[in-house]
Amino acid sequence: MSEFTHFNRQGEAIMVDVSAKAETAREAVAEGRISMSRECFEKIKEGEMGKGDVLGVARVAGIMGAKKTSELIPLCHLLNLTKVEIRFALEEETASVRAVCTVRTTGKTGVEMEALTGVQITLLTIYDMCKAVDKGMEMSDIHLCRKSGGKSGEFVRKAE
Amino acid sequence: MSEFTHFNRQGEAIMVDVSAKAETAREAVAEGRISMSRECFEKIKEGEMGKGDVLGVARVAGIMGAKKTSELIPLCHLLNLTKVEIRFALEEETASVRAVCTVRTTGKTGVEMEALTGVQITLLTIYDMCKAVDKGMEMSDIHLCRKSGGKSGEFVRKAE
Amino acid sequence: MSEFTHFNRQGEAIMVDVSAKAETAREAVAEGRISMSRECFEKIKEGEMGKGDVLGVARVAGIMGAKKTSELIPLCHLLNLTKVEIRFALEEETASVRAVCTVRTTGKTGVEMEALTGVQITLLTIYDMCKAVDKGMEMSDIHLCRKSGGKSGEFVRKAE
Amino acid sequence: MSEFTHFNRQGEAIMVDVSAKAETAREAVAEGRISMSRECFEKIKEGEMGKGDVLGVARVAGIMGAKKTSELIPLCHLLNLTKVEIRFALEEETASVRAVCTVRTTGKTGVEMEALTGVQITLLTIYDMCKAVDKGMEMSDIHLCRKSGGKSGEFVRKAE
Amino acid sequence: MSEFTHFNRQGEAIMVDVSAKAETAREAVAEGRISMSRECFEKIKEGEMGKGDVLGVARVAGIMGAKKTSELIPLCHLLNLTKVEIRFALEEETASVRAVCTVRTTGKTGVEMEALTGVQITLLTIYDMCKAVDKGMEMSDIHLCRKSGGKSGEFVRKAE
Amino acid sequence: MSEFTHFNRQGEAIMVDVSAKAETAREAVAEGRISMSRECFEKIKEGEMGKGDVLGVARVAGIMGAKKTSELIPLCHLLNLTKVEIRFALEEETASVRAVCTVRTTGKTGVEMEALTGVQITLLTIYDMCKAVDKGMEMSDIHLCRKSGGKSGEFVRKAE
Repeated sequence: MSEFTHFNRQGEAIMVDVSAKAETAREAVAEGRISMSRECFEKIKEGEMGKGDVLGVARVAGIMGAKKTSELIPLCHLLNLTKVEIRFALEEETASVRAVCTVRTTGKTGVEMEALTGVQITLLTIYDMCKAVDKGMEMSDIHLCRKSGGKSGEFVRKAE
Repeated sequence: MSEFTHFNRQGEAIMVDVSAKAETAREAVAEGRISMSRECFEKIKEGEMGKGDVLGVARVAGIMGAKKTSELIPLCHLLNLTKVEIRFALEEETASVRAVCTVRTTGKTGVEMEALTGVQITLLTIYDMCKAVDKGMEMSDIHLCRKSGGKSGEFVRKAE
Repeated sequence: MSEFTHFNRQGEAIMVDVSAKAETAREAVAEGRISMSRECFEKIKEGEMGKGDVLGVARVAGIMGAKKTSELIPLCHLLNLTKVEIRFALEEETASVRAVCTVRTTGKTGVEMEALTGVQITLLTIYDMCKAVDKGMEMSDIHLCRKSGGKSGEFVRKAE
Repeated sequence: MSEFTHFNRQGEAIMVDVSAKAETAREAVAEGRISMSRECFEKIKEGEMGKGDVLGVARVAGIMGAKKTSELIPLCHLLNLTKVEIRFALEEETASVRAVCTVRTTGKTGVEMEALTGVQITLLTIYDMCKAVDKGMEMSDIHLCRKSGGKSGEFVRKAE
Repeated sequence: MSEFTHFNRQGEAIMVDVSAKAETAREAVAEGRISMSRECFEKIKEGEMGKGDVLGVARVAGIMGAKKTSELIPLCHLLNLTKVEIRFALEEETASVRAVCTVRTTGKTGVEMEALTGVQITLLTIYDMCKAVDKGMEMSDIHLCRKSGGKSGEFVRKAE
Repeated sequence: MSEFTHFNRQGEAIMVDVSAKAETAREAVAEGRISMSRECFEKIKEGEMGKGDVLGVARVAGIMGAKKTSELIPLCHLLNLTKVEIRFALEEETASVRAVCTVRTTGKTGVEMEALTGVQITLLTIYDMCKAVDKGMEMSDIHLCRKSGGKSGEFVRKAE
């Protein structure tokens, strides 16, 4: 059975020793969604048309957030990211915005946390910019989609 | 109809002028959940018993994350928080952990973003510490529960 | 004759004691310019039309940079900014972009440094995003335009 | 014709994918100037003689600022700098201080932004420390002097 | 008997609620010492004479470090410091440098941690700059000297 | 005779050029102690038993602090740490807690500063959490125990 790796034998938190691991190409993709009122959703779409670009600001925030991951997550290793990209899908039926964050590096540990942090900061920024219109927005379905590279190899989330 | 406040008339992003607003006592409560495999959930519970305290580390990360909100969210004002508390509920049926973050300040703007950021960093830290056991964990139901203080006054999320 | 205030009598750097100063409303406006090749200038203008919004990203960076001033400038006091706004003027004749940053707070010291830092980070971000097209860009004419509030009162830069 | 590299085909800001690039030795040199009143310039020179060392503080700020580049510039990659040096030239005729920042690394992208950021934070710190004497100081002529390494190879700014 | 205040009744870490506390003038003074080889001590003294100013750099680092206290110490409240000063005493007999940090604010909590953090970062910077000459340096006698303001009032450390 | 390496020939502070150095495996171990009243010491021990885990919080702070070293120490190079571990020893006789921090990396410079910074932030956090019970605590005996890797090779502190 697998064990938590972020504790030593005494059960104390550690930043795991990855000194002996090889540097390999890594990629991770994470996504999440924020759902909102129809009114709020329509306003975000208008912004895409030119005025008040909520998603443009959120994208910048998400990229910068991904770079701050090792500062925010206590036991995370610092990695020099070689790519961060954030894409949006506007989902009409549910009046929600889906954010997908892709991160790459060449390093000794994976970039799952960076991709997830990129998603979270992106969603939080959307919330911040829209909260004057709708305080009831909800963030959900935030998970790792897939990752590759490293000893544990490929992970692909099962479709639900 | 309400308008996005984070843009000027030209549709350009701004940090809203709150110079003329009064300093009032503010509170916000936000929550969110991370669901996981039964195996992973059981391990977290064991940690609570003494070894490998995932939630203890996540709580510290969440408090520190709440303090970093204005650095992470581009148009957020800096506030001197006067209280940050993070509580957990272990939900057996769904094998999930719910995190609730309460933030207070006396200031010109509210602390909704700080409470939500506290929740997000808490959940991300749980993910990080448990991902060796379960990469399929999902974060969801992240929303503002209530807030008080300021011109817009009381907000309480409707029960679903 | 005025003296440098950031040193004590021994000539050692200090963060000046402002404990006894009153909190007053403060505003500062600073500006600066980046000049570039005609080709690069045209591309920035196209971005304004919809694709590749250099100035939108630079504006977000400048606002976030202004908030980081006390971290970057060693003897600067931390202030809770109540407004940050960055405006651009595209100057056809000189193929340059002028950035103007306005900052407000209520505090014991002024926001001149925050306005100037906002301008500098904005200009640096434009440079970064355009350097694949033109490495010869130059930043210049960066100065305080005016400031108000505090014991030293009003300052308005003389027209040249 | 060259294109902006910091956007994808949809015109959305991205942190450019440099995963496939080789790590090469990189160097960049940038410079800039701050001009001031004669009185202020004389005081800075006195500081060099022993009391109130403005340039000593500004040099430390500039080095620390260069290390923060990827935090400040949204789409900049994090690089582990292997050298940062800041030199000053006191220019009597124009009563101005010129700062020159040299940065080195071994990495997948260049250090132009780090050198320019080092210059900007240096100049801002001089402004901060001297503003009690002269609020009319101006920063100008800030540009990349030369850079080497990487696929785009050598760049040397043409003399004016 | 006094109790730890940084835990709630369940023994969970919290950022203590100071919402109801009054803002009062606060001051704290902390000190510490770094002892070194005679050779290293002599070199630091020479630096004071003009070349290689170790203490000048350490002073800047200490001031900047004091401003970062709430980022470094998990349960510390953010305070807008109104003064930070670092003084040195060169102690011939023991070949050691003593650093004294004074911090002031007007706020709801005290600045003891800021003064202590200022001392620690100052001493660490001295270590860093001198370690090529002496890796055996030791930091000691780091404590709060006195503090005033707030509900708990005056504290003065007893002479030993 | 050895020389300070953090200055150039003009005696100006620089971030030393390590471009030509090889990347080697590095390790450093540092330690330090905080002594306190018997009452305070007993409370910390109780925390270990389950409620109010001072050392658990301090350990997280120390690990995060070690990662921030290059931001805090002006002339320190950024390194991607591959391991950080903090261990405690409770020393009954002297009513003190000893913290030992071990850091590893593969890089061009050593991790002595990271290990020492980890110790200092750990001790400061203990002070913060216990200061309601004892403001007279003292931090001392903070030094490098040993380091390996790099051109200067092995260093082991002599027993006293």
